[in-house]
Amino acid sequence: MRIAVLGTGVVGRTLAASFTAAGHDIVVGTRDPGATGQREEWATSRLRLATFADAAAPAEVVVNATQGAASLDVLAQAGAAALAGAVLLDVANPLDCTGGFPPTLSVKDTDSLAEQIQRSFPEARVVKSLNTVSAEVMADPGAVGDGDTTMFVAGGDAAAKEVVTLLLGELGWHDVVDLGDLTGARGMEMWLPLWLRLFGSLSGRVFNLKIVR
Amino acid sequence: MRIAVLGTGVVGRTLAASFTAAGHDIVVGTRDPGATGQREEWATSRLRLATFADAAAPAEVVVNATQGAASLDVLAQAGAAALAGAVLLDVANPLDCTGGFPPTLSVKDTDSLAEQIQRSFPEARVVKSLNTVSAEVMADPGAVGDGDTTMFVAGGDAAAKEVVTLLLGELGWHDVVDLGDLTGARGMEMWLPLWLRLFGSLSGRVFNLKIVR
Repeated sequence: MRIAVLGTGVVGRTLAASFTAAGHDIVVGTRDPGATGQREEWATSRLRLATFADAAAPAEVVVNATQGAASLDVLAQAGAAALAGAVLLDVANPLDCTGGFPPTLSVKDTDSLAEQIQRSFPEARVVKSLNTVSAEVMADPGAVGDGDTTMFVAGGDAAAKEVVTLLLGELGWHDVVDLGDLTGARGMEMWLPLWLRLFGSLSGRVFNLKIVR
Repeated sequence: MRIAVLGTGVVGRTLAASFTAAGHDIVVGTRDPGATGQREEWATSRLRLATFADAAAPAEVVVNATQGAASLDVLAQAGAAALAGAVLLDVANPLDCTGGFPPTLSVKDTDSLAEQIQRSFPEARVVKSLNTVSAEVMADPGAVGDGDTTMFVAGGDAAAKEVVTLLLGELGWHDVVDLGDLTGARGMEMWLPLWLRLFGSLSGRVFNLKIVR
């Protein structure tokens, strides 16, 4: 599949490498490909860089791997026309770091970043997933315990959720719980304060929850 | 131990019965013991009823098993003097049901119900726990999967957390993760939106998370 990964932080790099390894055609979107390409971690990378707009234009799946505070601006640079009809996999969290650690949530409870994105780009097929774990765990769920932990998906487009669930399976996610329409993203984003606290208590990013029934 | 369980809903009844079965001396606090005693589920119960104040006065551990919206008022009826020095196990959630389902959180992100309680009753030794699961699971963690799921504790008083962890062990909780001081209650309470969504997706209350490392 043609996948655009928007964002060149650890989440974007990790997902782009994993989707490439799974055989997909990946372009990584960034504000200034020339400047990004000079950064050490990109100078040695085989991943292709392009502007947000050039990356998104041909993509069947667009991954929002930007910081939550930048997401709406970056997606606007990608362009509503490029996002129309595309599966928009939103893995970002609306963390507000301006007050120091721990960050707070800039949107919550009665709304979510995923819903803000969907309202801003009504023709995109937004699916929330992967925001509940660290980048290492997103790309390698087998690193956690016996590898059998839980991932969530939420979104209003059933076919888009199927595409995302397929991609999740390629990364190694097999216990995928469908939380229904995109309002399910509220709970997924509100998990972050507990995740951040556990990150402190457990001294590391390699953990996840398993929903036991 | 002398334990006062404040609240006569399913959470209060279930915890009172379980702590009684574990050999503790339990009194259940309610607004009007006479009226409560005439309700069908209490008329046939051997659990002792008392006013909030009479229940709390001799208790070493006071369990706040009231609805979040009523908690501060009920604890005021119990009385600051009765709560001073007591372990106050807060199992409530600050759910605001006035807007219908799903409820929202009346406090979140930069504060929590547990912290509100601690500020209102500074001499109480508040510990947050058990709010992350249904009443059935609180009292019988063995009902979920292989029985090995995770419970959290948060609070500023280490000795009070030890008392609560002992009580949790009697109920069957063995994977207890200490989230540090009472600000850890924020994440525990913000788990509720995801819990409520899972309650819908999984069609039932008998589930819990396991934190896998």
